[in-house]
Amino acid sequence: MTGLDAFIKEYGNQVTVFINNRINESKAPDIIKEACLYSINAGGKRIRPVLFLMTLNALNVEISKKHIAYASSIEMIHTYSLIHDDLPPMDDDDYRRGQPTSHIKYGQAYAILAGDALLNLSFETMLDYASTVKDIAAARDISKASGYEGMVGGQVLDMNKPECVKDILKMYSLKTGALIKTSVVSAAIMAGANKSILKRLNDYAENLGIAFQLRDDFLDKTDINEKTGKPKNSDKKNNKSTYISKRGNLSNEIKLHKHTKNALAAIQPFDGSYDKLRSLAEYLDNRMK
Amino acid sequence: MTGLDAFIKEYGNQVTVFINNRINESKAPDIIKEACLYSINAGGKRIRPVLFLMTLNALNVEISKKHIAYASSIEMIHTYSLIHDDLPPMDDDDYRRGQPTSHIKYGQAYAILAGDALLNLSFETMLDYASTVKDIAAARDISKASGYEGMVGGQVLDMNKPECVKDILKMYSLKTGALIKTSVVSAAIMAGANKSILKRLNDYAENLGIAFQLRDDFLDKTDINEKTGKPKNSDKKNNKSTYISKRGNLSNEIKLHKHTKNALAAIQPFDGSYDKLRSLAEYLDNRMK
Repeated sequence: MTGLDAFIKEYGNQVTVFINNRINESKAPDIIKEACLYSINAGGKRIRPVLFLMTLNALNVEISKKHIAYASSIEMIHTYSLIHDDLPPMDDDDYRRGQPTSHIKYGQAYAILAGDALLNLSFETMLDYASTVKDIAAARDISKASGYEGMVGGQVLDMNKPECVKDILKMYSLKTGALIKTSVVSAAIMAGANKSILKRLNDYAENLGIAFQLRDDFLDKTDINEKTGKPKNSDKKNNKSTYISKRGNLSNEIKLHKHTKNALAAIQPFDGSYDKLRSLAEYLDNRMK
Repeated sequence: MTGLDAFIKEYGNQVTVFINNRINESKAPDIIKEACLYSINAGGKRIRPVLFLMTLNALNVEISKKHIAYASSIEMIHTYSLIHDDLPPMDDDDYRRGQPTSHIKYGQAYAILAGDALLNLSFETMLDYASTVKDIAAARDISKASGYEGMVGGQVLDMNKPECVKDILKMYSLKTGALIKTSVVSAAIMAGANKSILKRLNDYAENLGIAFQLRDDFLDKTDINEKTGKPKNSDKKNNKSTYISKRGNLSNEIKLHKHTKNALAAIQPFDGSYDKLRSLAEYLDNRMK
């Protein structure tokens, strides 16, 4: 197992345990706890929380429970967005990661409420652990990335079915990119990184987010129940234009590698502490699920 | 105009202006800004933000922009909850306050996203203004009240159609009571009120919340397009049991007055600074819309 694999496994697991404990210990009605945990435990690579923790690690911050709490909060936001995106009035997906989506399992009302509960819980969790001005600033960056100028805004653009490549890329940068970017940037804010480091990490994460979505679009075109767990061509079902549907496989592949290269170039001046962030960019470029 | 009316008018208006400015100045896609503002500007008494500001006023805190921001955040949470509650898989209401609900006007997808956007914006706004440990603690109290141990939990109980009076009252205390309670308690936390004052304000607000819902149930039974703006008997349409449907008008009225009396008793020892909170309890007890 490489250092990257070990890090992902170790901290992905810590995030999963943290969220499970937090929800299990709450006094919420059982059915909503169950619906939240169903989606949290439906798989998922924990890429965003791992990116958050990996950035702290690159900046030589010792990872504490507060950091696991923030990383977990980002994963809760990601999970809430998947639950709401899958709803019939939105993408209308019956399966995700090979399992029935929340509204198929629990009905639409509970799916809406489970999403709402996870979004609330994300902020509640950060506020439980925040104590410094830097902690507040990190939570603020996450909230902006999650909201209507970020991920929610991206979903709105997606509902408009963008047709031209420029609009498709804008949608990617908000719907997928914003939360990936804040996973890196909010960690750097929390660590008190200086402006020049922040700028480079911002560029790294911005490119990583676009590359991530381009790879997703490619994987979505292939036979997938073993891979992303989404039915083959689920994006096609909704008549969605993607970069790959507009420009073809080869252009998609070239663009993906270009963004990965840009991500690596952004952190090129930094020392070996950033090696895991480098490996992660390469891993995401090549991933098969 | 009494002192109470003037306060409600002045600060209700400041909250409306703050939220409108905040949304208008954002870089979010126009359609989602419009959908958010549609629901924010659809009327509403601004009781919760006014309670927040009135509590600060009782505690002799000079109201600043930070306080207006927090009060506005509570109103955003209230508005998001109405948008999601009205959705077809939930209460399926076509009208609220005499106007088409968000999903009737914009479709279900945008209604879900407008709710998500407002919930996000609420936390983003608080985090923009939070700087002290007390500010964080106030936002935390609001997040707990809004989440699955509070308002979302109450909506879950409501979906289960509680039948016995005990369960109906538990549902009221979460679905309606939690956000009203935090409107008072979070302001007291922010003001640094001591434990004994906090306890009394907590009791005041807890009773106020139940009284508020009992009054709502009564108003819902009457001819309403001029009053709450909901179609007559909209709760009946969903076969919902209420305290009034179980125990009748007279018991509802007696219980309502009892909770108002308890609310007043809780703050009885305090001086004239609390007079507006007293008047508000009486106003809510008698309100006709």
